Amino acid sequence: MDNLLQGLQETLNQEIPITQHLGIIVESYDNKCLILKAPLAQNINHKGTAFAGSLNALVTLAGWGQIWLLLKELGIPGKIVIQDSSSNYLLPVQRDFLAICHKPDTHYIAKMEAMLQKRGKARIELNAEIYNDKAIAVAFKGRYVIDLDDEH
Amino acid sequence: MDNLLQGLQETLNQEIPITQHLGIIVESYDNKCLILKAPLAQNINHKGTAFAGSLNALVTLAGWGQIWLLLKELGIPGKIVIQDSSSNYLLPVQRDFLAICHKPDTHYIAKMEAMLQKRGKARIELNAEIYNDKAIAVAFKGRYVIDLDDEH
Repeated sequence: MDNLLQGLQETLNQEIPITQHLGIIVESYDNKCLILKAPLAQNINHKGTAFAGSLNALVTLAGWGQIWLLLKELGIPGKIVIQDSSSNYLLPVQRDFLAICHKPDTHYIAKMEAMLQKRGKARIELNAEIYNDKAIAVAFKGRYVIDLDDEH
Repeated sequence: MDNLLQGLQETLNQEIPITQHLGIIVESYDNKCLILKAPLAQNINHKGTAFAGSLNALVTLAGWGQIWLLLKELGIPGKIVIQDSSSNYLLPVQRDFLAICHKPDTHYIAKMEAMLQKRGKARIELNAEIYNDKAIAVAFKGRYVIDLDDEH
């Protein structure tokens, strides 16, 4: 598991270099729930809270990372891009922040895998949240497209 | 006008420091249409196109900046925060990119101003787009809340 997490961290660092300026860290994954972390200091705004653009980047990557892990587990080489998303900024975020994205249920994953095998492409919808203490500060819904990677 | 644009650029630089890492430049404003710009190089992803998080940050700030300019023109001191937004990533962005946000119509602005005077608070909904050549690559809709700033 640690190797997988390290792989995701390296992928983010190398393939999306701006994530290093945002200070994005792959925090943990327990085979269900992926947690990414970012520091307030690097993402602060004029109100002393986290910039909406940084919050959105973190939840977008939490969804992306969850699918990246899922494809690794399934042994399917695929490219993941976001198609559309919505974010509700419910509370200001006043400290370092975590984005949490849960793995879809088994039935949903099986359906996605079947679509990938059949069409070489699948859509997947995920929710992710950022918490401020125990309250949801950002609620995110993202739809991603996976394309089977023929190069591998 | 140049002073106003310079004021917006300085506000972004100072109040949201991460915008400097994103390379965000206030490009132009013709009293209707605000254009912000960002370089592909600093915001590139694994596909050689712009990272969705950076695209979202630019459109979010184009809406925020349009309201900032509007409040300056109206002489109203206010704080602007985003409430919710949705982004459709329609096409990959393969070069430096521009986010364009149009000023709302006069009637809509008058209504917003009246709400601010009456309640000290108003909501405003704006669209912004990022173009890849002449096609819309990202379509964004954002809802912002303005609070009258009593400190001034």
